[in-house]
Amino acid sequence: MEFSSKLIEQAVNHFSSLPGVGKKTALRYVLHLIKKDTNDVEGFSKVLNSLKHELKFCKSCHTISDNDICDVCVNPLRQQQTICVVQDYRDVMAIENTGLYKGIYHVLGGLISPMEGIGPSNLNIDSLVEKVSQNKVSEVILALNATMEGETTSFFVFKKLASFQVTLSVIARGIAVGDELEYTDEVTLGRSIINRIPYNNSLVK
Amino acid sequence: MEFSSKLIEQAVNHFSSLPGVGKKTALRYVLHLIKKDTNDVEGFSKVLNSLKHELKFCKSCHTISDNDICDVCVNPLRQQQTICVVQDYRDVMAIENTGLYKGIYHVLGGLISPMEGIGPSNLNIDSLVEKVSQNKVSEVILALNATMEGETTSFFVFKKLASFQVTLSVIARGIAVGDELEYTDEVTLGRSIINRIPYNNSLVK
Repeated sequence: MEFSSKLIEQAVNHFSSLPGVGKKTALRYVLHLIKKDTNDVEGFSKVLNSLKHELKFCKSCHTISDNDICDVCVNPLRQQQTICVVQDYRDVMAIENTGLYKGIYHVLGGLISPMEGIGPSNLNIDSLVEKVSQNKVSEVILALNATMEGETTSFFVFKKLASFQVTLSVIARGIAVGDELEYTDEVTLGRSIINRIPYNNSLVK
Repeated sequence: MEFSSKLIEQAVNHFSSLPGVGKKTALRYVLHLIKKDTNDVEGFSKVLNSLKHELKFCKSCHTISDNDICDVCVNPLRQQQTICVVQDYRDVMAIENTGLYKGIYHVLGGLISPMEGIGPSNLNIDSLVEKVSQNKVSEVILALNATMEGETTSFFVFKKLASFQVTLSVIARGIAVGDELEYTDEVTLGRSIINRIPYNNSLVK
């Protein structure tokens, strides 16, 4: 793609570096912004700059937060001895949206992925081990993606915590609510049979 | 969607104001940027700001350009008396990519759309009429979208220019190269039959 303006080219390059955005979509975004109010675009520019300079992370669980300690960690109604280990901020939001979890979180900030050059030292694993070693934690729930990277990371965290007196659990894998057995893949269906649970009326809500 | 950080919320709102971007995609973009190099994000922020303050438009044809007069208008090899009227910068790029047009352009900056509150006065129509009235133009080619808005705008420009001594033409509408007749809509197929042209070997390339 050839552009008649260096500025447009730079803007398109920046937008097309976002996940799933190609040059054509990026140009569409740029032309949209050109037509927008100057204040709007200036605000957008400022917020982007702030993302790198002003964004804070909770010192306890590493999630994104406006304060030093996030709203979940600081909440006396949350069970501070139950920790749910997740990949990133989006997973915290997803679990919070269920309204069913009353413990706190620990955000790893990624998953072990040799392909992308992410090793255990790049993740917030040491601080989790430290929390557990201080005997403040009764249960660690591993809630990572059911992918190769997620399973590898779960196993690594499990190995790190196995020697401590703490209950280690993993979120259930099985057929999704609303799914039909016929169309469920064999691995998932197999696991959901092996990990079957006692039938309970409370499940049928 | 509830966010634990005002800054994230603002960034997501800005990104989701882009065409076709929802809150989830916007959050994906924001989390991607947080992980990126500070220089990259600062550069992105600066370019966005420049879009509103430094971007120049060609004084003759209104396309985006780094100079006062764009590369096409300034090129002595282009036929200055043939003007192709297009909606925006993307259309100039699309036609330039064909490599088959040797004239110059005139960018309207939009299409007449009462639904979006865009009237003729919001578009660069007066400057086109002025160019034509100065007798410097021999042909005006209307190359606008084959939509309701495009056709309305074409008709408006046609009415404005009809009294001048200038050839007015419109780009051919018909079945696209590679398309099958069976799947072409009736209106397009009907038009392409009525507007049939003499068979010519040069078309079969």
